[in-house]
Amino acid sequence: MTEATDHLFPADRATRAIAHELYDEVAGAPIISPHGHVDPRLLADDAPFRDPADLFLTHDHYVTRLLHSGGISLADLGVGRAAPVDPRAAWRILAERWHMFAGTSSGYWLERELEQFFGVTEELSADSADRVYDRIAAALADPAMRPRALFDQFGIDVLATTDDPLDDLSVHARIAADPTFPGRVLPTFRPDAYLDPAVPDFAERVARLIAQAGQETTFSGYLAAIEARRAHFIAHGAVSTDHGVTEPFATDLDPDAAEKLFAGAIAGELDATSARIFRGHMLFQMARMSVEDGLVMTVHPGVFRGHHTRTLERFGPDTGHDIPLRTEFVESLRPLLQAFGTAPGFHLVLFSVDETAYSREIAPLAGFYPSVYIGAPWWFLDAPDAILRWRSAVTETAGFYRGSGFIDDTRAFLSIPARHDTARRMDAAFLARLVIEGRVTRRTATRIVRDLVDAIPREVFKL
Amino acid sequence: MTEATDHLFPADRATRAIAHELYDEVAGAPIISPHGHVDPRLLADDAPFRDPADLFLTHDHYVTRLLHSGGISLADLGVGRAAPVDPRAAWRILAERWHMFAGTSSGYWLERELEQFFGVTEELSADSADRVYDRIAAALADPAMRPRALFDQFGIDVLATTDDPLDDLSVHARIAADPTFPGRVLPTFRPDAYLDPAVPDFAERVARLIAQAGQETTFSGYLAAIEARRAHFIAHGAVSTDHGVTEPFATDLDPDAAEKLFAGAIAGELDATSARIFRGHMLFQMARMSVEDGLVMTVHPGVFRGHHTRTLERFGPDTGHDIPLRTEFVESLRPLLQAFGTAPGFHLVLFSVDETAYSREIAPLAGFYPSVYIGAPWWFLDAPDAILRWRSAVTETAGFYRGSGFIDDTRAFLSIPARHDTARRMDAAFLARLVIEGRVTRRTATRIVRDLVDAIPREVFKL
Amino acid sequence: MTEATDHLFPADRATRAIAHELYDEVAGAPIISPHGHVDPRLLADDAPFRDPADLFLTHDHYVTRLLHSGGISLADLGVGRAAPVDPRAAWRILAERWHMFAGTSSGYWLERELEQFFGVTEELSADSADRVYDRIAAALADPAMRPRALFDQFGIDVLATTDDPLDDLSVHARIAADPTFPGRVLPTFRPDAYLDPAVPDFAERVARLIAQAGQETTFSGYLAAIEARRAHFIAHGAVSTDHGVTEPFATDLDPDAAEKLFAGAIAGELDATSARIFRGHMLFQMARMSVEDGLVMTVHPGVFRGHHTRTLERFGPDTGHDIPLRTEFVESLRPLLQAFGTAPGFHLVLFSVDETAYSREIAPLAGFYPSVYIGAPWWFLDAPDAILRWRSAVTETAGFYRGSGFIDDTRAFLSIPARHDTARRMDAAFLARLVIEGRVTRRTATRIVRDLVDAIPREVFKL
Repeated sequence: MTEATDHLFPADRATRAIAHELYDEVAGAPIISPHGHVDPRLLADDAPFRDPADLFLTHDHYVTRLLHSGGISLADLGVGRAAPVDPRAAWRILAERWHMFAGTSSGYWLERELEQFFGVTEELSADSADRVYDRIAAALADPAMRPRALFDQFGIDVLATTDDPLDDLSVHARIAADPTFPGRVLPTFRPDAYLDPAVPDFAERVARLIAQAGQETTFSGYLAAIEARRAHFIAHGAVSTDHGVTEPFATDLDPDAAEKLFAGAIAGELDATSARIFRGHMLFQMARMSVEDGLVMTVHPGVFRGHHTRTLERFGPDTGHDIPLRTEFVESLRPLLQAFGTAPGFHLVLFSVDETAYSREIAPLAGFYPSVYIGAPWWFLDAPDAILRWRSAVTETAGFYRGSGFIDDTRAFLSIPARHDTARRMDAAFLARLVIEGRVTRRTATRIVRDLVDAIPREVFKL
Repeated sequence: MTEATDHLFPADRATRAIAHELYDEVAGAPIISPHGHVDPRLLADDAPFRDPADLFLTHDHYVTRLLHSGGISLADLGVGRAAPVDPRAAWRILAERWHMFAGTSSGYWLERELEQFFGVTEELSADSADRVYDRIAAALADPAMRPRALFDQFGIDVLATTDDPLDDLSVHARIAADPTFPGRVLPTFRPDAYLDPAVPDFAERVARLIAQAGQETTFSGYLAAIEARRAHFIAHGAVSTDHGVTEPFATDLDPDAAEKLFAGAIAGELDATSARIFRGHMLFQMARMSVEDGLVMTVHPGVFRGHHTRTLERFGPDTGHDIPLRTEFVESLRPLLQAFGTAPGFHLVLFSVDETAYSREIAPLAGFYPSVYIGAPWWFLDAPDAILRWRSAVTETAGFYRGSGFIDDTRAFLSIPARHDTARRMDAAFLARLVIEGRVTRRTATRIVRDLVDAIPREVFKL
Repeated sequence: MTEATDHLFPADRATRAIAHELYDEVAGAPIISPHGHVDPRLLADDAPFRDPADLFLTHDHYVTRLLHSGGISLADLGVGRAAPVDPRAAWRILAERWHMFAGTSSGYWLERELEQFFGVTEELSADSADRVYDRIAAALADPAMRPRALFDQFGIDVLATTDDPLDDLSVHARIAADPTFPGRVLPTFRPDAYLDPAVPDFAERVARLIAQAGQETTFSGYLAAIEARRAHFIAHGAVSTDHGVTEPFATDLDPDAAEKLFAGAIAGELDATSARIFRGHMLFQMARMSVEDGLVMTVHPGVFRGHHTRTLERFGPDTGHDIPLRTEFVESLRPLLQAFGTAPGFHLVLFSVDETAYSREIAPLAGFYPSVYIGAPWWFLDAPDAILRWRSAVTETAGFYRGSGFIDDTRAFLSIPARHDTARRMDAAFLARLVIEGRVTRRTATRIVRDLVDAIPREVFKL
């Protein structure tokens, strides 16, 4: 009974009408995706997607984790290091348990994708599984369903990937050099594994990093090597660095102390307290480098990675058992903000999977420090209700112009339009309510809804 | 202006209409109550309720605590160890302060009960106090108002009580053996006082426990004695154990360390840190036993019991000053989940009175571990708005099928229908919104609203 | 499209109609403002406001902080210790960036004030900046825009200021003695700087305090000196004390321990742990004194003051970088509540900028302890959506009669009516929803909406 065009809008008719008008302003606007996890080879190679399971299921840990919670082994879904599985059988598992996804963001996106790209309108079920599978499989043979054609169809203006500091970025160079594909695909510098002495192969990684830069194995050589890789990324179009720290803790150290901790880190001799201080100092150093080289710094903290060790060992990382933690920003980030919070041109985007930080910490920080931007709702929170909670929590303190713009953060290429569309609908819904409540004029709402998808992300990410 | 049949439904007419239809699917469905605190003697003895104060006031600490905050002594309400009071006088105190209950869940339930069971439609007040009292008192003489008749009238399918591990369960046996009462009343194993060395009479309790099982006073004897009592409970129909720990902290120990701590606990010689480790290990052992004997494990953590010592000393426990605490699940429960999180058949239901854990911790855990279920909103949070906040917080991550189904957790027998009715209305309201927003189809919403009151609690609690 | 009279009301027409009726009951009710930061000299001197920037911008750190986050130096706004600036230039800065305030509470209030007091209906912008400036500037010459005339026009019944314990309160005496101004302006005892050894000039402050009271430099002399100042405040009409502690931590000490800590505090020799204990004991002593002298105790905890040191040093305190912290009440306040929680006549109002404490801690505490009242949403949270979140979080546990009534807490005199109007509209909106949902009768809603602005604050603040 609800038209697809009315999806996600509030029930009240007057509010819905305004939401619709505001949404129409931006429904077709280009997609700016300044942070995500799409593999650049997808666009460099432009190979067709293999099968429906490969496309929608196997690589999407949002989907596989919920099936796992319903009693399905990740092995039966071909997740991570598991042996390949019959994609039709895996697809059937999903279809039979489709009711588990009702009300979830993953479920909503997948239904939009099935409808929009494959014309599937019947609900997934044991009965429809094979029919839908065949329909998708047939469509994947169409050149219009290749990654580059979709990139174009999606209207993507910029797509950032997430990359290892030692990546030579040749894949990005290949994309950039290809005159037949004008799409803008940017690398992002993600150095976590090179900054955390608790990572098992930290010493080897750092050794490679330093060797490649021709530096000495000293703390200053290490810093210079990182700076060289950042420059390499900038030369390939990177606009930001990303930091997936467990806690957003930063601290300054004098050079001697840093040198000593670095030596201990390389030697694998730091205790937990010292390792934490080293990590905290490296987050501080990353901010210092951003002030100098202009890369936007995004922080995605507060996730316990690999909660279930046996699953991690058997299937690898990113297999659905990363769980949010309580996160504190105000005291943890203070040394960094004392030093760089008002530095000209420094941009620091703070994300959180702990909703309690929105109104209490992030909005107040972004409402004072010119460097701090409020990251869009992320991971478990990039869903319709959660987006409205986030807007409600941050806007009254910090307005609309201290946010990052929407970030899809996805590995699932096909979900990019659905995710941005969701964000646009929720922004329109939120603004429509403010208009109805007399808190924002219709004219200002139009300006804001447009800026949220264009001027704001361009400014925050220096695009 | 709002018909009673529309209670709690959203204002928007289209949404309300769908909510109504969904609610109608389950309004008359049998009540499954797998966790609560009704005294089984109520149903074994089937004695009439004494008077209106006994029925609605004296034993309901939701009600007496709020009157206490309004300046009324618990002595004047006959609470706990207080001397008996004139029930009419106590009732007048409540009626005169009825405005204090406006907007509370207790107030809402009590009004429903007065209307549904006693035909009282006028508001409680100083003026109406005696009239309403007399009306209730008269009705209580009716055999239809006896506990068993009400059990039948309420449509209760299963009712679980909460019981001491050393309870011989003869009351439950008496109910089960009575051919005139077919109601299913199950005991629940609640061992807190036998697992926590900080409980004043811990050593004596454990001594009795071990003696009854004919075991030795060793850690393994202690475990065997607990296992024997669990078996006794299973033999009497128990399906679950319940754990009211202050924090959901679990830890494994090697047998020597456990033995040593056990000896210290029995001797009353553990310091706070050691006592915490012992408690944490016993929570771990409870999970281990559940994996082995199949009892569902429910955890109700995070409540500071007996916040006001003088009230505790004068009136006893459960007298209204148990206050929620910040609660952490992700790191605290990890050892338990590492060991048993994917164990076949293990069910672990996590409740929280700290709402911040819903989206941050509980839904993500339940969205991966097949053993973890999201406990329904509990205690201070089992009210209309809080239920909607909970659904909104958990559903987008974990859907509808990772929850426990509604749990009334009540001591107030007469409030059972009103509480379940509230939950059904809020689920219908929530689902109706998702239908209106195009996120769930009408057909799927019907399936879900039915499953929430039947298939889901039956599966989670193995009923 | 939304009439000004419908501002902030819910979109649903039936709900809006009831909200409107409820609001109309109290729209013109006198303003009771038992806590705020208006300078009493404003009313003693009754001098005209200087210019639009002085009136709306320079002294309002809600406004200047957001401009600062947008890249404006506080120096260009004349904030704090900055040199005076051209008010028209400062005003233009605000007007050009007015879109930054869309959706914020500051923006909403300022628009209401411009419209209500200056007839400004066009939106602020670069284009309108000078026109609006001139219009306000011209109006400020009108005697009707002097503080006392506005006090009268606003319908303020009581206005409390916040004052230093050593203030002689001669300004308050002057106001009270002036037969031409019948307004009731009360001082509030705010002793933070005299109770915290970490304050840089703590020893000198305490020395002055003790000297003025003619006491000895002992702990008991110190307490006696504080008691004497409280008596002085009471003699000048004070009804409350206010405590801006970082954490609501209270602890009792025996006299010897207290004496020893006091000596260390005076000597500047306390380490952080001891200083915390001293502060905690002084919060305990403040409660003890309140029990004895009847002053209501308000606690505004959980704010990191002066997060950015360079801004603090250059521009002074209260310049926009005070940031909320996670706040714990249940264990922290327990010693105080054990001792005084049920003391007759003791009133303790708990505010929080950490929303998580509303449903988890504050409402449950206020739902048992007769002394505890739920403080209105404060600082970053006194905005429409935040007010509704607060009502939703506390009401189902504690009802409407355990709250403090609205507190504007403002330095911005002209914002007082807009802030109280916002609170009244949100209360009406919240109650209207409960009426529509059948949870509160229309008659009870009327009683509550009236009590919220009159009987409740009068009782809580003993007015």
